[in-house]
Amino acid sequence: MGPRVVAHLVRLVVVNGTSRHAAVVSINLCVALLCACIVLGHLLEENRWVNESITALIIGPCTGVVILLTTKGKSSHFLSFSEDLFFIYLLPPIIFNAGFRVKKKRYFRNFMTITLFGAIGTMISFFTISIGAIAIFSRMNIGTLDVGDFLAIGAIFSATDSVCTLQVLNQDETPLLYSLVFGEGVVNDATSVVLFNALQNFDLNKIDVAVVLKFLGNFCYLFLSSTFLGVFSGLLSAYIIKKLYIGRHSTDREVALMMLMAYLSYMLAELSDLSGILTVFFCGIVMSHYTWHNVTESSRVTNKHAFATLSFFAETFVFFYVGMDALDIEKWKFASDSPEKSIGISSILLGLVLVGKAACVFPLSFLSNLTKKADFEKIIWRQQIVIWWAGLMRGGVLISLAYNKFTRSGHTPLQGNAIMITNTITVVLFSTMVFGRMTKPLIQFLLPASSHTVTSEPSSPKSPHSPLLASMQGSALETASHSHIVRPSSLRMLLSKPTHTVHYYWRKFDDALMQPMFGRRGFVPFSPGSPTKQSIYWGR
Amino acid sequence: MGPRVVAHLVRLVVVNGTSRHAAVVSINLCVALLCACIVLGHLLEENRWVNESITALIIGPCTGVVILLTTKGKSSHFLSFSEDLFFIYLLPPIIFNAGFRVKKKRYFRNFMTITLFGAIGTMISFFTISIGAIAIFSRMNIGTLDVGDFLAIGAIFSATDSVCTLQVLNQDETPLLYSLVFGEGVVNDATSVVLFNALQNFDLNKIDVAVVLKFLGNFCYLFLSSTFLGVFSGLLSAYIIKKLYIGRHSTDREVALMMLMAYLSYMLAELSDLSGILTVFFCGIVMSHYTWHNVTESSRVTNKHAFATLSFFAETFVFFYVGMDALDIEKWKFASDSPEKSIGISSILLGLVLVGKAACVFPLSFLSNLTKKADFEKIIWRQQIVIWWAGLMRGGVLISLAYNKFTRSGHTPLQGNAIMITNTITVVLFSTMVFGRMTKPLIQFLLPASSHTVTSEPSSPKSPHSPLLASMQGSALETASHSHIVRPSSLRMLLSKPTHTVHYYWRKFDDALMQPMFGRRGFVPFSPGSPTKQSIYWGR
Repeated sequence: MGPRVVAHLVRLVVVNGTSRHAAVVSINLCVALLCACIVLGHLLEENRWVNESITALIIGPCTGVVILLTTKGKSSHFLSFSEDLFFIYLLPPIIFNAGFRVKKKRYFRNFMTITLFGAIGTMISFFTISIGAIAIFSRMNIGTLDVGDFLAIGAIFSATDSVCTLQVLNQDETPLLYSLVFGEGVVNDATSVVLFNALQNFDLNKIDVAVVLKFLGNFCYLFLSSTFLGVFSGLLSAYIIKKLYIGRHSTDREVALMMLMAYLSYMLAELSDLSGILTVFFCGIVMSHYTWHNVTESSRVTNKHAFATLSFFAETFVFFYVGMDALDIEKWKFASDSPEKSIGISSILLGLVLVGKAACVFPLSFLSNLTKKADFEKIIWRQQIVIWWAGLMRGGVLISLAYNKFTRSGHTPLQGNAIMITNTITVVLFSTMVFGRMTKPLIQFLLPASSHTVTSEPSSPKSPHSPLLASMQGSALETASHSHIVRPSSLRMLLSKPTHTVHYYWRKFDDALMQPMFGRRGFVPFSPGSPTKQSIYWGR
Repeated sequence: MGPRVVAHLVRLVVVNGTSRHAAVVSINLCVALLCACIVLGHLLEENRWVNESITALIIGPCTGVVILLTTKGKSSHFLSFSEDLFFIYLLPPIIFNAGFRVKKKRYFRNFMTITLFGAIGTMISFFTISIGAIAIFSRMNIGTLDVGDFLAIGAIFSATDSVCTLQVLNQDETPLLYSLVFGEGVVNDATSVVLFNALQNFDLNKIDVAVVLKFLGNFCYLFLSSTFLGVFSGLLSAYIIKKLYIGRHSTDREVALMMLMAYLSYMLAELSDLSGILTVFFCGIVMSHYTWHNVTESSRVTNKHAFATLSFFAETFVFFYVGMDALDIEKWKFASDSPEKSIGISSILLGLVLVGKAACVFPLSFLSNLTKKADFEKIIWRQQIVIWWAGLMRGGVLISLAYNKFTRSGHTPLQGNAIMITNTITVVLFSTMVFGRMTKPLIQFLLPASSHTVTSEPSSPKSPHSPLLASMQGSALETASHSHIVRPSSLRMLLSKPTHTVHYYWRKFDDALMQPMFGRRGFVPFSPGSPTKQSIYWGR
């Protein structure tokens, strides 16, 4: 809770007598509906295509209808969307958790491809959508939108939904695709936000080579410094927790410190006008690689699930909100003097998104394949289609950017803006519900089980008798190869595989310098000289 | 984050251009200082008397000084205290965690004593302090305070600090004292809040027997319905999680649901003008007794530590805030035309608190001892002194009530109010730093290790090699006697002890009806018929 926020709040609460009661009512409704989302989402889980996102998207409009009926058509929501709420409170846990959970080895093996797709791909998508929007919308009569607005539309609609991707793809079934699509999604989000912010402070009337070069330089600076900040925060947390050994006294403090430092990295990035998304993503990666191994066993379990739970809250809340806002009568009335036009604009936007993503995925896959020698490393066309398709989903980041651009405190003063907002919501709803739902069957159709063996990594053996252990294997397996208790067989297996040179040198560097400094505490039992049986048990 | 809150916030953020930046700066400062509190608190941990509360209380003024210097004497804090922030966001996790962690058997064995101390004791304390305040303050010249204000002072200064108690007393070393002092503290907090709210809506000019009876009836109604709501929410969560078996699909959802339902119980109580503190406390007790045993192992560890971490955040934040507000120049200037008077008032208030608490502890202990037959059940005078002393600490609840009564949105329009606020802060600082610091040595002096055997419960064996297990024993031991895998020896030991009749019938009722319905899932492994070795491992 932002303290300054609170200061404002207090003044408000005292000024409007009923505000506290209203806040309590809102919180009650919100919490109760989140509970409903969880329970319903669970009940619908048997049908794997209906996940929490979609449940929340469905519950949202239902709530809207109820509120609409109770307030007799005055209002459809008890929440106003705030990009502050989203960027300060909801996004950090989602992205941090993504970084914390990503399979690092696989992610970094595909690092170049991911960066290519994420950064260059977003640029391509941005130009395609912008040019398309300028070409089509400027001929239609949709209010006062200028070139800056169209470029913003390009940046906004280039932001894919990495959150939804996580729920549709499975890290164990389609590991390569997962790491590509999700990794790309994160870089994509960051790129869109950076692009969008850069465009906001840009004088579009004076474009020349120097300006473009400055823009690109600025872009690279943002990328590198954001990454550096994230890595630095992660390493700092690892060092502090290792040296101070806080878990000796209190597990809770360890957990609290990890959370606070992760959040601090994000907020520091925001304060310095860097990309908080990139920062907290890399902070998550570094924390899961070093810090996580320095804390006690109970802290590990707690951290893993607490981060996931926070992320889950945030995701559900975002989708729930989008669903509810879809029924905002005020905007619809204002936007649609003709429903046909609305449908037209949404279709055009969806078409542009489809084309923009295609223009980025297929050429870049071709480029990426040129650099790969081994056949199994190449991205086959069936996989390309899945990457394209999964990249079509649009979600929270898109919504936030759109609200940031086209509304003033939740209201749409101009008709053109109202049209863009309603169409944004339509695109998000459609892409999440339709594209999202169809991704799973598409994968099953295009990539039957046999082709999942593309990755050379061993699949993690699931032991049904120890769910605690099983739930931790995801991360634990990562370290098994890193830790000093690697069994000879896996070591041989590891060396016999063709590993990338970069990865090999990184491993050497990591083992020689980084791990002794920042990691590898494991949990040291109180009595010295005791058998490390338990450490081994947990370490794997 | 209150959604309505956000709605307001957004409008504010747009109105004042720099507000978002200010909020980001405040959050950064706040998070960084919380990190500092944790790290410093840990470093000072060797000195057991300096705990996080005191660290936070020290860091607070230091931050105040720095801000004072940077803003050149204009302002000493970047936070404004809001009783909404406290009551809506900070208090629920603290009290829930207290209920979740309380040793139930011991708590309910002393239930009557705790209720006596908490409810009747607070009343006695309230009357003593009110009458004292009327007698002394009305003769001094301290602004315009009426009888209602003096009664409010009585209610406000009767609220002990159960949070600080948790940090000073040790559940394992002095179990009886811990359960008495802490249990009393919770009921005391609830009573003060109820009393305070009742006084706010009270016409003091028309007091007769009917009004007093109505007041008492209202009081009982609040107590009973709040308790019922808490128990109901807890049982509902246990039932849902048991029947739906959510952990099968996702640990995170289980954790999220438990958190949401606990918070919902608190907010529902607030919505219905009940005592959220009592509700969430009982919800915590029921959840640790039933719900906790229905979730997966990883959920158990996560819940335990996540709740503790949230509570830790909230506590540290409260103390940090109080420390910082102690340097609010504006109030001090306004309040103290003469420093002697300020010191006088603070001393009088501290004296009243001392007398009020003594007037409640010693006579009620005498009464309580009359009802006990066995010698070891009686509260000896040394223990009475500790209970009295530990009950002197004042903290967050007191501060919140005082701010609620004497400020308008963080400002003190009247001199009398400013005086009361500065003196409240003085009392809190003094009681926490001095009384709090002296509690530990006092216990060591009055109750050397031998007298800790007053409780008849077996002390939990700590195994240093398995910290995960050890950290869970607190709650796990509770169930050992309840669960169906009790070893014969402990069963015999249990039966041979003189248990209270109520406790015996409750046990029968619990085993026959409640456990089959709400509890005892344990975690069922996926493959049926597997050895329950792990369940036993975790179950104990």
